[in-house]
Amino acid sequence: MTIGIVGLGLIGGSIGLALREPDRKIMGYDPNPDAVRVAGDRFCIDSVGTLDEVSQADVVFLAVPPIYVVSALEAVRKAKRPETVVTDCTSAKNAMADWVMKIKDPTVVIGHPMAGHENSGAKYASAWMFRGAKWILCPVSFTDKQAVRQVESLIKAMGASPVRMPPELHDRQIATLSHLPHAIAGALVQMQEDLAAEDVSGGSWRDLTRVGGVDPNLWTQIFIENRIELARAIGDLESRLGTLKTALETNDDKTVRSFFDRAKKAKKAFEIK
Amino acid sequence: MTIGIVGLGLIGGSIGLALREPDRKIMGYDPNPDAVRVAGDRFCIDSVGTLDEVSQADVVFLAVPPIYVVSALEAVRKAKRPETVVTDCTSAKNAMADWVMKIKDPTVVIGHPMAGHENSGAKYASAWMFRGAKWILCPVSFTDKQAVRQVESLIKAMGASPVRMPPELHDRQIATLSHLPHAIAGALVQMQEDLAAEDVSGGSWRDLTRVGGVDPNLWTQIFIENRIELARAIGDLESRLGTLKTALETNDDKTVRSFFDRAKKAKKAFEIK
Repeated sequence: MTIGIVGLGLIGGSIGLALREPDRKIMGYDPNPDAVRVAGDRFCIDSVGTLDEVSQADVVFLAVPPIYVVSALEAVRKAKRPETVVTDCTSAKNAMADWVMKIKDPTVVIGHPMAGHENSGAKYASAWMFRGAKWILCPVSFTDKQAVRQVESLIKAMGASPVRMPPELHDRQIATLSHLPHAIAGALVQMQEDLAAEDVSGGSWRDLTRVGGVDPNLWTQIFIENRIELARAIGDLESRLGTLKTALETNDDKTVRSFFDRAKKAKKAFEIK
Repeated sequence: MTIGIVGLGLIGGSIGLALREPDRKIMGYDPNPDAVRVAGDRFCIDSVGTLDEVSQADVVFLAVPPIYVVSALEAVRKAKRPETVVTDCTSAKNAMADWVMKIKDPTVVIGHPMAGHENSGAKYASAWMFRGAKWILCPVSFTDKQAVRQVESLIKAMGASPVRMPPELHDRQIATLSHLPHAIAGALVQMQEDLAAEDVSGGSWRDLTRVGGVDPNLWTQIFIENRIELARAIGDLESRLGTLKTALETNDDKTVRSFFDRAKKAKKAFEIK
């Protein structure tokens, strides 16, 4: 089996490492020679090819920044074999879903691995990146079922669990579960800088700000791409914190207590799973 | 040297484990027999005593919930030797500082270790809890310098770094650096429950919600105790997220980009230290 990877950054590099096995041939492409070199040094791929060569694989993973995903898809579609399956890794499905609905190509499977790292580049790629992670796929009415199963089988080979959902549900959920945490972390590190005092933070702060310094280029694209759903998620958080703030201002310990009671129950519900 | 620990929960138990050495005798007290049993089973203390007996130690650590800290201090002060040094571990210094300013006891050292765990009780206590952590002390004008140095030397023995600051600066900083993250985590887990969908979260969500299910009793006390500063910190976060939300609603990628640029810079500034 041959695998093509377009974009040899953190995610593309990790897909390569996670899929490298004697019976799979991994060919990678990246327009940036530095990215190609790092991915090669870290043994993420078996060989380097042109975009046209990589597009000949059985399955092609697109792991490119959001603003390039549609143009990369168009280029791969021109060059690929009819049976080549193409899947992407983009964190917001809006533009990609619009394009797929227009083109109606059954071999294109919309996807998004729920894994990452606060640093960028194949330098931080890991064969274990996707172990235990969910990998969302958004097949639509005309997506070929065999293509979806082929992508799912590769996802499982990487140690991840495929989950199917419609693109719009993906965007709504990921606004809360991924984009909002990045917005919060970014705001918190700015607050810490404005405190202008010795760093006396502990573990909870360290955890909440881990993703506070992510790549501005990539994350501006992601936020703008999913801006409607993310604005809604920020509004939801503001309203919950606003209720808590009013309770604090009015010394209303009953409301504070029920905030924590509800939170503990919610946290437990997700731990059982 | 003898050490007394009043309150054998997560923090009291961890202090015992961190300080147990052949030349230190650790005596613990807790009104709850279950807590005493767990702390004994986990080897957190050398012996169990009454509150009066524990108060005879060279240094007494108060590791009790915020609403009990003043009454525990009063009880220990009645029973202790004149030279016994007393220090606490409370996450908000407001009531404690008021009491200290009124009593003017030079042997009382206001303190707060910046370490913890999302679960409660000596069951989760660890000898390594304070390794690499900051431990804030808030000596005031009349606090005995030798008493402060004695507490600092024990803090260092536990692997933590003592940091001195005034009580009001402690409360302002900890509102942002510790209490706000707990408010955010609590709000986020409630949002996840309301999403009512399969859990497809990844690493950033896991990190931001780790402390989402903390003990409602303890944390209601902490929040109410530091309610003025925490309400201010929530307002500060709301304003920053509000700016980002407006930028998203108006498709203003320049503002989103400068949000991430500033965050990356701030994150880096704290990583260098």
